[in-house]
Amino acid sequence: MSTDSQVRNIPKTVKEGPFGVFLWGGQEKFDRRRDVFQELSTNPMFAKDTGAHTSLARKDAWTKGALQSRELITIKLRKNWPHRHFMDAIRMTDWFLPVQPQFRIFMSNLERQMTDEQKRIWIPKAENFEIFGSYPQTELGHGSNVSGIETTATFDPLTDEFLINSPTISSTKYWIGGSGIWATHGIVVARLIIRGQDHGNHLFLTQLRDLKTQQLMPGVEIYEMGPKAFQGMLGADTGALRFHHVRIPREQMLMRNAQVERDGTYIKPKNTKHSYGSMVTVRALMAEITGHDLLRAAVTAYHYTTFRKQFKRDRVNDKNETTVFNYASVRHRLLPLLAQGIALVLVGQNINQAYQEYTQQMLKGDTSDLEDLHLQTVGAKVYSTEITGKGVETCRIACGGHGYSGLSGFGRMYAHAINAVTYEGDNYVIGQQVPRAILKHYKNKTEASLPSISYLSVLRSEKPRQPPADLTNATSWTSRGVQQWALEQRLVSMVRQHMEDTNANVDTSYTTHALTMAHSDFAYWRGLWKVVDAISHESFVEHMKALAHVFSLSIIYNPHHPSLSQHLPLAPNQLAALRKAYSEVLADLGDNHVAAIIDAYGLTEYEMDSALARADQTPYEALLEGAKRSEMSGEKMSHLWPMMVDTRQIWKREKAKAKL
Amino acid sequence: MSTDSQVRNIPKTVKEGPFGVFLWGGQEKFDRRRDVFQELSTNPMFAKDTGAHTSLARKDAWTKGALQSRELITIKLRKNWPHRHFMDAIRMTDWFLPVQPQFRIFMSNLERQMTDEQKRIWIPKAENFEIFGSYPQTELGHGSNVSGIETTATFDPLTDEFLINSPTISSTKYWIGGSGIWATHGIVVARLIIRGQDHGNHLFLTQLRDLKTQQLMPGVEIYEMGPKAFQGMLGADTGALRFHHVRIPREQMLMRNAQVERDGTYIKPKNTKHSYGSMVTVRALMAEITGHDLLRAAVTAYHYTTFRKQFKRDRVNDKNETTVFNYASVRHRLLPLLAQGIALVLVGQNINQAYQEYTQQMLKGDTSDLEDLHLQTVGAKVYSTEITGKGVETCRIACGGHGYSGLSGFGRMYAHAINAVTYEGDNYVIGQQVPRAILKHYKNKTEASLPSISYLSVLRSEKPRQPPADLTNATSWTSRGVQQWALEQRLVSMVRQHMEDTNANVDTSYTTHALTMAHSDFAYWRGLWKVVDAISHESFVEHMKALAHVFSLSIIYNPHHPSLSQHLPLAPNQLAALRKAYSEVLADLGDNHVAAIIDAYGLTEYEMDSALARADQTPYEALLEGAKRSEMSGEKMSHLWPMMVDTRQIWKREKAKAKL
Repeated sequence: MSTDSQVRNIPKTVKEGPFGVFLWGGQEKFDRRRDVFQELSTNPMFAKDTGAHTSLARKDAWTKGALQSRELITIKLRKNWPHRHFMDAIRMTDWFLPVQPQFRIFMSNLERQMTDEQKRIWIPKAENFEIFGSYPQTELGHGSNVSGIETTATFDPLTDEFLINSPTISSTKYWIGGSGIWATHGIVVARLIIRGQDHGNHLFLTQLRDLKTQQLMPGVEIYEMGPKAFQGMLGADTGALRFHHVRIPREQMLMRNAQVERDGTYIKPKNTKHSYGSMVTVRALMAEITGHDLLRAAVTAYHYTTFRKQFKRDRVNDKNETTVFNYASVRHRLLPLLAQGIALVLVGQNINQAYQEYTQQMLKGDTSDLEDLHLQTVGAKVYSTEITGKGVETCRIACGGHGYSGLSGFGRMYAHAINAVTYEGDNYVIGQQVPRAILKHYKNKTEASLPSISYLSVLRSEKPRQPPADLTNATSWTSRGVQQWALEQRLVSMVRQHMEDTNANVDTSYTTHALTMAHSDFAYWRGLWKVVDAISHESFVEHMKALAHVFSLSIIYNPHHPSLSQHLPLAPNQLAALRKAYSEVLADLGDNHVAAIIDAYGLTEYEMDSALARADQTPYEALLEGAKRSEMSGEKMSHLWPMMVDTRQIWKREKAKAKL
Repeated sequence: MSTDSQVRNIPKTVKEGPFGVFLWGGQEKFDRRRDVFQELSTNPMFAKDTGAHTSLARKDAWTKGALQSRELITIKLRKNWPHRHFMDAIRMTDWFLPVQPQFRIFMSNLERQMTDEQKRIWIPKAENFEIFGSYPQTELGHGSNVSGIETTATFDPLTDEFLINSPTISSTKYWIGGSGIWATHGIVVARLIIRGQDHGNHLFLTQLRDLKTQQLMPGVEIYEMGPKAFQGMLGADTGALRFHHVRIPREQMLMRNAQVERDGTYIKPKNTKHSYGSMVTVRALMAEITGHDLLRAAVTAYHYTTFRKQFKRDRVNDKNETTVFNYASVRHRLLPLLAQGIALVLVGQNINQAYQEYTQQMLKGDTSDLEDLHLQTVGAKVYSTEITGKGVETCRIACGGHGYSGLSGFGRMYAHAINAVTYEGDNYVIGQQVPRAILKHYKNKTEASLPSISYLSVLRSEKPRQPPADLTNATSWTSRGVQQWALEQRLVSMVRQHMEDTNANVDTSYTTHALTMAHSDFAYWRGLWKVVDAISHESFVEHMKALAHVFSLSIIYNPHHPSLSQHLPLAPNQLAALRKAYSEVLADLGDNHVAAIIDAYGLTEYEMDSALARADQTPYEALLEGAKRSEMSGEKMSHLWPMMVDTRQIWKREKAKAKL
């Protein structure tokens, strides 16, 4: 079926069906999305107005974000919303709000790092929004390298307090979400110093502002750090914080794992693995949700490219221009991203699920699964943010010039997706943990203990592995066995190279990034097929198989980095067969399945907030309407007209002067 | 030499030396840069204030841009600046201004498309800024596909006028720079209709606004089209225009090539090639200047990454943390971009130079070189904008988290670089002209007539070409012969594939993009070595050779698309040698040459406008200072404090309500 004849079919409200429930991650998540949608889309405080807030002064945009935060707090308290409802509602507002850290990072640290006694005091305050939380970790001088943090918390046994101090400019806490104007408290990451001895980083709940006046507490110096690139995170106040010997009671060190006693005795944590926890929590969450950011861009681009027509494919015989979605230049960009976005969502949520289950175990003292989970979350964070960040921009560019309009919404989507490649650990830095684990387990011959690197056993085999089918036959490439063979071959070759480099003392900080991507390709490939194999609904299993094949062959034929191709050397006729297979699965997805998948995912116009994807208007009507509503249209700038008229007279005056 | 010990060396003013003059494209261009720098950097109207205008409301930012335009007009008229001074000054303001179209596209069309008589009337008006110009071509419904334009200019023989009309919403002129508020005139691209007969697109000088009042002319409907993605082009008002049977005198059709006589007789152009002209002009200019946009990002990132330290390379033996520039993860990203940026500048300016010379010939009636120039400018536009757009963002991400600060300037750089992949022709669309020309000349056996595709002769040869040296030897890869062999082999394989696809009626609109990039790789490789070979200065020829090798091996080993690797199949030991060679030339550039190149290029802090590259402040000091100056810091948002205090009381009220 050609998509030429498709009518626009963009939902205004959330509609339920088994395929949609599956794509959104199950009934619970689907219902939550519907609840949140219902609440926000009908509340004028959350009215979407494509591009409008990107025309505001930054402080006016933030004011809107602060008032939305207040409204969300009211809704949560009134409706007894669970935390995840609240967090998903922030995501649906489609920017970053000052209240975002409250559960995402503040509360989750209270939960995991406080003693039961501390929790009894602080958790209710945080849940009721009696206090506004933030998490001051990153400093001007150190981000991903948390061991370089300079802020100190020195124990004063005379007063039973810690003195929080920023000794240098580079120790200024920077990029601290919600702390610039909003937060009253921060969980400060600081080096614990007792009697001159440095015990490394610990967490200290520090009051930043007076609860009754919002004035800064004595010794606390805070600035709002200014604009972000791409007009990103407009709704959030991000703080630069310095502490000048700020005193907090000893009880405000988070003491679930390590403790400081009244006399200054330091009791170190029984299990040092706990320190992983905080970043891993957010990374696990990112693994689950990031793919939806890519899907929003892909679905928006789908709706636009199935509307826009351009050129006749056959200049002589075609009466009408062709819908641009039908060109290979669009399909080859959008369809793999759609498949990858869905893979990120379906596999990522399983990683987060496993992490959540682990957290429950950990609270009971069992940390056995942590290493594998840590590896999975690091890989998933790097993989999902790389693909999503770049993919959102690819979707925008595939829409041509109108993608650059602020009204298309793509600019906002990119601004809020691409920062994830650096926050919660720069991808090039944290990605190195994957090859590090690979080397360790290979050396110790313990790869069988970690499911995510079990492919290393292939590396031990002396003889080359033969492909399980004839690679010069295009249909071979749609067999699971061949796909696995290809991904493993490539990975094994890259691991071998990495081992040689490491032994030769070569700096691998660049090449490990591609290796981590290849590792995750394999993990997601396996994860996606596992999900597809478990589908019991006849109604959509074929759609998902078609999509899984596009995912599989996209990562093999058109990988995330050219070096991945170099590690899978294929003969020209094998490559030609792979190319043919990839073209065929793309054509199958594009002709027979994509419309059903987009329809089932059912992203509403409210969620997309793009002039290119409106239910009742064509993109052209919506773009023209956007221009009519511009605050710079018509007479709204007429106070400057006399200046422009006069500017056209300057030449006369200059000529007269020159004659003098 | 390790760069660990380097001190920051960021110039405040333009300094002259032979290498710098060379890198800026010769004495004339260097002097112009210095003149413009001198004028702007000392004029408070053009004070740079990293990130400040990104905090303004859009209309306030535009107002600043309009006032800067007025100031620039005054300077130009007073100093008798040539057009290029004026155009470069707009570039140095670092955003898009309403007055930008005046020479870049408005005047250049008057020059090329008006009769001598028309020019005598209109050129002085445009030069004096008595009228403000714009170029309404793109419509909501059609951009790169200009043949789809719907706006009509219908000749009325009774009144000797044309009626300009926009019959549909999709015929609304959109993305028209400077027309939203500023411009008084537009060169409207419209289909010429005489007695019901459609003669295709022609140009019509149309008055948009009254010169004395700035009011819209009768029948002209204009809106300012709203925000752009990434807060791009803040200084420019971009218009959406509709014409309702707007009458203009017959004399305002641009009639150098085609004419309409008093009685409606249409005289078609002698040479239809003229219609190329307008977009080619801008593309040729883009070829020359785009590389500087990439270099600015690369130099800014260089200054930051040679300052920032992170992690100890050897945890046990190193006392200090390592400068991040010394990690492979940074060098492998920045150094190839530096080399590519310089190649874009040095080769691109030769393409523009050739085009300028051709324009002079064309005015005398000679259009013989046009096809080759057209091919060169299309290739250069696609190539330079792809590499620059993506490269700027790679530089930002290589700087880690602080790259996302608005104060770093990278967001602005990206916003103003990436739009070039769609404007003046979407790269995926216009890039198809390169393979189209290849096929035509291959069929006609006329490839020898076009220097830029002479490599096609290789394709005619029956027997496989042997490499000119042992490819398993790393030093082979630094020989010119091997580099040429590799680039030609790859290209020939891609062209062969393209021919097969075309014969099989496969849609090649996706794959041609990679082919155009590979074609341009070769053109720029040849162009760069030609420039390097012509250097007579002993003082910098070695630096340029080191840089040219990084350029050459970067495009071979780490190409712009994975498919380029697939078309250059190498045996594992050949690939290992290439990899080794690439590592070595990168190390050589990074250790022995990059500092001298950055120093010679001498980009001033004013030109970079980044908190990460200040002469008298470390990046940390500048980021902290930026936060202190934030319009949202301290008490500036204290009017909202009572709202925040009250929000923390909501829980009490809700609890009380619940109890009732």
